[in-house]
Amino acid sequence: MAKDNEKTNELVVGVDLGGTKILAAVITADGKILGQAKRKTKPEAGTESVIDRIVKTVDDALGSAKLTRSDVRAVGIGAPGPIDPDTGTVLMAPNLNGWENVALAKMLRDQLDLPIFLDNDVNVGTLGEYVYGAGRGASDVIGVFVGTGVGGGLIIGGQLRSGARHAAGEIGHMIVLADGPFCGCGNRGCIEALASRTAIVQSLRMAVLSGRKTVLADALAGGGVERLSSGALAQAWKANDTLTVEVLSRVQHYLGLHIASLVNFMDPELIVLGGGVIEALGEDFLPPIRRVAYQHFTQRRDANRVKIVMSQLGDNAGILGAAVTARFHLNS
Amino acid sequence: MAKDNEKTNELVVGVDLGGTKILAAVITADGKILGQAKRKTKPEAGTESVIDRIVKTVDDALGSAKLTRSDVRAVGIGAPGPIDPDTGTVLMAPNLNGWENVALAKMLRDQLDLPIFLDNDVNVGTLGEYVYGAGRGASDVIGVFVGTGVGGGLIIGGQLRSGARHAAGEIGHMIVLADGPFCGCGNRGCIEALASRTAIVQSLRMAVLSGRKTVLADALAGGGVERLSSGALAQAWKANDTLTVEVLSRVQHYLGLHIASLVNFMDPELIVLGGGVIEALGEDFLPPIRRVAYQHFTQRRDANRVKIVMSQLGDNAGILGAAVTARFHLNS
Repeated sequence: MAKDNEKTNELVVGVDLGGTKILAAVITADGKILGQAKRKTKPEAGTESVIDRIVKTVDDALGSAKLTRSDVRAVGIGAPGPIDPDTGTVLMAPNLNGWENVALAKMLRDQLDLPIFLDNDVNVGTLGEYVYGAGRGASDVIGVFVGTGVGGGLIIGGQLRSGARHAAGEIGHMIVLADGPFCGCGNRGCIEALASRTAIVQSLRMAVLSGRKTVLADALAGGGVERLSSGALAQAWKANDTLTVEVLSRVQHYLGLHIASLVNFMDPELIVLGGGVIEALGEDFLPPIRRVAYQHFTQRRDANRVKIVMSQLGDNAGILGAAVTARFHLNS
Repeated sequence: MAKDNEKTNELVVGVDLGGTKILAAVITADGKILGQAKRKTKPEAGTESVIDRIVKTVDDALGSAKLTRSDVRAVGIGAPGPIDPDTGTVLMAPNLNGWENVALAKMLRDQLDLPIFLDNDVNVGTLGEYVYGAGRGASDVIGVFVGTGVGGGLIIGGQLRSGARHAAGEIGHMIVLADGPFCGCGNRGCIEALASRTAIVQSLRMAVLSGRKTVLADALAGGGVERLSSGALAQAWKANDTLTVEVLSRVQHYLGLHIASLVNFMDPELIVLGGGVIEALGEDFLPPIRRVAYQHFTQRRDANRVKIVMSQLGDNAGILGAAVTARFHLNS
């Protein structure tokens, strides 16, 4: 139990609910993590089980900070798929074994007896970067997260925009190559079909089938996209594996074009790049993306005022952003 | 001279400054046009001459409403190219004989002795639709204007967004077909290179060169893009000219994909389609665009809450929006 009530009153728990893991952390108003915990999500065990695992992870995080539920003011959660933040409902989450209209906030409130605030994971990640990371001091920020898919978050005038149907920020399904390769969403030529880890694995596999050589051949043989981790991909790229470099240079090209489109439309101050693929490849992956993007700005004047940078919070963007979400609702 | 001072105090003049013509109108607070005037821009005669022609057009509009300069509170202007609304400067306008950093507001203030407020023409047109036209009652609106080029305006939370560098809304240079046909901006595969009148004329010309037949063959022979008016194009399309229908069905496809990208990113309530090409082709041109767009929404739920509609103000969107711009600044 913490001693200083005035201080502990300001604490919230941030939760990052992913398809594979749950992260939870107790977070101070200035973004300091006092304690955290991690657990597998196991969505295949059903909704009740996932709720139970979230509750345990929250309690573990509190325990590791030597705190109890009564020491924190609220829990913020970032969850996958479109969310209705007003009702705290996960509308649709293929990653969570196909959740549909799950009243996550209510279910957690019943168990934790704390105010629960919910938003989309990528929105929350962008918010984390905006308040505690690469976006500090900016007003208009777009987050571009490249992992198994491509997601995005949109902050305009210092406010997260969720759109008329809570569907804003789906930048992964903006079309960069009309009538191009099929995307998981059923459409064609989305940036997700060109630059996600799923798209990268598909390109590498096709190349291997056509006889091209790569150090990743074994890792690519059989299985789904999860067979090739972002880490293994990054290792092959850093080792200058010819095919990997070739495939990833197309990815850099498409990401550059996509970012230019976003900038030509929104003219933000900052694009934050994050997600598993970007984190694994690191800062060295960015210069060609920047070069293509800047080349395609319609307005070249003051181009250098638009920054294209790496996420600063990495894996912690989700929990920190979830804490911001909770704090925002508490104070509004 | 008007009699009711209380009412005339609310009047402003809206000016739409285009590369070919200047429109000006005296406009009431509820969007009624009391008098208007029109004049050729003739940008090739130089900046001073254009300023002079704007002043005359404003005075003509006042005269046709039997008013004088002292009867109006301000002049709002929509001008082409990126604008700095804070300083009232046209930063760059290829359509105006290559204007660069022209202090338009100051130059007009010196001559008209009235407050002058300036913004980008397409932003201003979107604002006109938002306040007096198709966008009434909405909160998040994107304007898509298809003419010689493709321009756009962006209203979020009821506010026109101009971006960090006053460059927001350049939707014409979002890339829909990576590495596709060259665009006037020097890049490739921008929606402007696929769906503008310039792009349409180029496609038709290539087809004619390759031996395809069209009723537009004579109109297309020699000269620039201005050889084929939007009206002639619409006539051929309505007469079911095979080549015209074929070329325009690609345009509908690309516009549909582009609008889907905008919706997937911003999730607005409304897309307003306007500009010379759309106006000439009319309401019948929209259903295939809508079909493709809705098909490519990532979030299909509540898709019908996103409206894709024709501009309601047509040629008057510019002058009405310019009046809104002036009013907004007077009241802020």
